Amino acid sequence: MADEAPFQFLHNEVIQYIYKSADSGDTEHGRNISTLESMGFRVGQGLIERLTKDTARFKDELDIMKFVCKDFWTCVFKKQIDNLRTNHQGIYVLQDNKFRLLSQLSAGKQYLEQAPKYLAFSCGLVRGALSNLGVKSIVTAEVSIMPACKFQIMIQKM
Amino acid sequence: MADEAPFQFLHNEVIQYIYKSADSGDTEHGRNISTLESMGFRVGQGLIERLTKDTARFKDELDIMKFVCKDFWTCVFKKQIDNLRTNHQGIYVLQDNKFRLLSQLSAGKQYLEQAPKYLAFSCGLVRGALSNLGVKSIVTAEVSIMPACKFQIMIQKM
Repeated sequence: MADEAPFQFLHNEVIQYIYKSADSGDTEHGRNISTLESMGFRVGQGLIERLTKDTARFKDELDIMKFVCKDFWTCVFKKQIDNLRTNHQGIYVLQDNKFRLLSQLSAGKQYLEQAPKYLAFSCGLVRGALSNLGVKSIVTAEVSIMPACKFQIMIQKM
Repeated sequence: MADEAPFQFLHNEVIQYIYKSADSGDTEHGRNISTLESMGFRVGQGLIERLTKDTARFKDELDIMKFVCKDFWTCVFKKQIDNLRTNHQGIYVLQDNKFRLLSQLSAGKQYLEQAPKYLAFSCGLVRGALSNLGVKSIVTAEVSIMPACKFQIMIQKM
């Protein structure tokens, strides 16, 4: 029931703290976003290590993505990704129709511009998880209607 | 299995971030501890509100403590408090024999002096929860052998 609540509340506090302690302004906003992203990165690395401890070796990139959409997402957000799409050329789009870290915000357009703050950590989370599975990527997120959210993953070929 | 892991990893990141961004020194250490404590306080307030939404009214202070030891602790740390003692004069001692936020540290004496960093948030958590149930308190924690931990709650009579 309230299983993901401690994580959710703590996540909100982290955002408050990072934004409060820094001066306002666009440069600071960028820096805060990247702070949140790198916190997410390290959490993602740690989590995926724990989750894949006893799993079989992944067949390919798509297999890794499916694991992220199911097991990894369920561990953090207590639900699976609702839709996974790919162009089979290194771009993946993960859609979550009710993203937990946005579900406490009002669903109107009012807080749409606040959304990046609430997504930066999770972008890092995905990038960190993939990175520890040997997949280098760039992860971005976009929201059109709250609390639905799309994560776009661009694989960086080595 | 890894249910509490996202919370645990995020908690560790928060500690790293707060300690990294501040200068070192004793004053700063005190300030960091109180930052962590107040983050915990607000998370505790939010959580207890959600958890007690459908519960019956509490009979007395001890009844509240039992709820904190069972439901609240289970929600955050996926286990109950192992032992609750009281002098019936406003002091409660909650013992957790395997405290989750310490279980990732080595069990020797080596990191004993690091323990306060890892307990401040949880002290705030308990104080926030109690505060929202109308109980004003001072919460401190002590560790003698990792990862066991005792939280002492002193009720402040109004």
